[in-house]
Amino acid sequence: MKRIGIADTTFARVDMYKYAKRRLEETGTYFVVERYTVPGVKDLPVACKILLDQRGCDMAIALGMPGPKDIDKVCAHEASTGLIQVQLQTCKHIIEVFVHEDEAEDDKELAWLARRRVEEHAENAYNLLFHPEKLSKMAGTGARQGFEDKGSAEGLTSAGSQGRH
Amino acid sequence: MKRIGIADTTFARVDMYKYAKRRLEETGTYFVVERYTVPGVKDLPVACKILLDQRGCDMAIALGMPGPKDIDKVCAHEASTGLIQVQLQTCKHIIEVFVHEDEAEDDKELAWLARRRVEEHAENAYNLLFHPEKLSKMAGTGARQGFEDKGSAEGLTSAGSQGRH
Amino acid sequence: MKRIGIADTTFARVDMYKYAKRRLEETGTYFVVERYTVPGVKDLPVACKILLDQRGCDMAIALGMPGPKDIDKVCAHEASTGLIQVQLQTCKHIIEVFVHEDEAEDDKELAWLARRRVEEHAENAYNLLFHPEKLSKMAGTGARQGFEDKGSAEGLTSAGSQGRH
Amino acid sequence: MKRIGIADTTFARVDMYKYAKRRLEETGTYFVVERYTVPGVKDLPVACKILLDQRGCDMAIALGMPGPKDIDKVCAHEASTGLIQVQLQTCKHIIEVFVHEDEAEDDKELAWLARRRVEEHAENAYNLLFHPEKLSKMAGTGARQGFEDKGSAEGLTSAGSQGRH
Amino acid sequence: MKRIGIADTTFARVDMYKYAKRRLEETGTYFVVERYTVPGVKDLPVACKILLDQRGCDMAIALGMPGPKDIDKVCAHEASTGLIQVQLQTCKHIIEVFVHEDEAEDDKELAWLARRRVEEHAENAYNLLFHPEKLSKMAGTGARQGFEDKGSAEGLTSAGSQGRH
Repeated sequence: MKRIGIADTTFARVDMYKYAKRRLEETGTYFVVERYTVPGVKDLPVACKILLDQRGCDMAIALGMPGPKDIDKVCAHEASTGLIQVQLQTCKHIIEVFVHEDEAEDDKELAWLARRRVEEHAENAYNLLFHPEKLSKMAGTGARQGFEDKGSAEGLTSAGSQGRH
Repeated sequence: MKRIGIADTTFARVDMYKYAKRRLEETGTYFVVERYTVPGVKDLPVACKILLDQRGCDMAIALGMPGPKDIDKVCAHEASTGLIQVQLQTCKHIIEVFVHEDEAEDDKELAWLARRRVEEHAENAYNLLFHPEKLSKMAGTGARQGFEDKGSAEGLTSAGSQGRH
Repeated sequence: MKRIGIADTTFARVDMYKYAKRRLEETGTYFVVERYTVPGVKDLPVACKILLDQRGCDMAIALGMPGPKDIDKVCAHEASTGLIQVQLQTCKHIIEVFVHEDEAEDDKELAWLARRRVEEHAENAYNLLFHPEKLSKMAGTGARQGFEDKGSAEGLTSAGSQGRH
Repeated sequence: MKRIGIADTTFARVDMYKYAKRRLEETGTYFVVERYTVPGVKDLPVACKILLDQRGCDMAIALGMPGPKDIDKVCAHEASTGLIQVQLQTCKHIIEVFVHEDEAEDDKELAWLARRRVEEHAENAYNLLFHPEKLSKMAGTGARQGFEDKGSAEGLTSAGSQGRH
Repeated sequence: MKRIGIADTTFARVDMYKYAKRRLEETGTYFVVERYTVPGVKDLPVACKILLDQRGCDMAIALGMPGPKDIDKVCAHEASTGLIQVQLQTCKHIIEVFVHEDEAEDDKELAWLARRRVEEHAENAYNLLFHPEKLSKMAGTGARQGFEDKGSAEGLTSAGSQGRH
């Protein structure tokens, strides 16, 4: 039985946690989910550290939605830097799923984008933990999470990418 | 009995400490406050480290007011990076409450903004320490501290956000 | 027998792994390759850490293809910073091979550039591990990986650079 | 008896050390000063680390004067980031006193600014070490070092700020 | 007998190592030089770490020549950040000698600039290791490496700077 930590924020404008948990459960079994909610993205690194170090999680998913202003971009950068440090300290993966508010044109697209990116990254997280060979099959295929895949520049496809968009 | 550290600066143009302490005390009990004042935001990381590591605090609140110039933005970024490092070293939360001088149009708005952001983050800090489940109820609701909440992009509300603005 | 770790991504639009492995094998012997595929460049640092710390690799090659947007540039910077940290934690080299999507004008050039940069860096990796003196012979000669070498500003050539472009 | 380390540079265009030492001695007693001179600001972090870790200093003052070019700004940022890391590693304060060459219009103002900022920060350093309560009295009063204080946005003054400009 | 590590790159367009070693030997004795060549500046941090930690060097000199593009500036920043981290981990100095390609107008000036900056920093390195008091005599005099010294803003000169340009 594995333990997957999910850290999310009150700042985000979409309930990303719900989509992450549901997709994980649709994708496979043999894991439990542990949730940790913080105010904003800069609080995510220590939340993930606590999940991985003190609550026995084998991996974490960090869900955040940085705002559109310059200062928000800086916050996201600080958060990402911290999330990488936590991974190096714990030797465990944290799948960062950030959706920038200004990636979408309106609330409807934002909700759509957030859901889809969360779901596709939930699959990545599951595979990293249970089926890492599936990721190798998709290597170099230009996979994207949220918007459409960009595809291979060499015209390649891969078995692993069949079910992807 | 918990111990909440509050680090503040002589550089800030509003007595943020006063509002933080008062709101914490209005929100709940079973904690004491330990204060540490430094010159500017770049001194906050080690102040918080000392509060968390040497003075037995369970969490810290870092209060700062970066100036409007480019160099001030860089200082704030360095301070934030340091505050995240301290959290990862101590496995404890630091709630960073920075109010940028140029977020407000005049001194009056600056004082108003600083007070309100401090107070709302004091509630976040209290909840993280005593009622983390309250934050999960507010997850994904687009909560903001200071200016108005932005709200959910999915039209959701949450029980936990009822008392918020 | 040495162990060379290669970390690659599903985000990349070229199968960089294939070219790295093949060129390593064309260059020499006495090593085995261990592969680790992750979603994107920000996942490479912990992948390399795991390769170097937990899977006994003596060196790693980190293959990535950052996108053309500002946010992609920031991601690449965060990844590079993390890759340097891993090297300092393990005292082992990670040869970072990043090809930015906007370095090439179209898919064909992108595929060409990625392949050539990967291959030339695979030689660097091999030499660092088995023949470090070859690198010293090429020092200061303005070697580049992918596009043409820039050459010495002093009009020097070196024995070591003979086989290079 | 306390030990205050002062690190300075040959790059700076003002003898900042002289002003720091003199003002410390005018402000109080029960300390000795240990000096460490390096070429530029990027050498200050390890100099301070050596002062704090190997030469028994209880605190350090880092004196630097970054140049006016973009690359100088980046160097200053790298130095500041390093100085914060040293503080977190040693749990001791480093008061960073950087005067950017382009803050002043000519050499005369530069010398004046550097001297005044150094002197006011020397007082901060002394107080942090011997009278931290004095800093708390000045908290939120908009204190500045070098140019004029900006003052409180709430119209407050404080006993502690009486002797300031 | 001291041990000075010199790390250089194949990316650089001038054989900086040669000038560093020669000037060190012209400046004094009682040291040996240990060389380590890597592909580019981002490989310098771990090279220096290996020199200082595993090959018994007392100090290192990191020689690099970042290119003129934005991405090259970012690489140089990442390298510098890493070099500072290594210094803090080892408590030893690394004298970073970076010459940016776009500091010079043509190859001839680039070669001249690189040589002179390397030589002047080789003297700094020697003095830090053997005669730190010489650096203190030059403190605050506006010393530069490569282009002309900027001089003191206070009209001061120092005994230590007599032999400088």
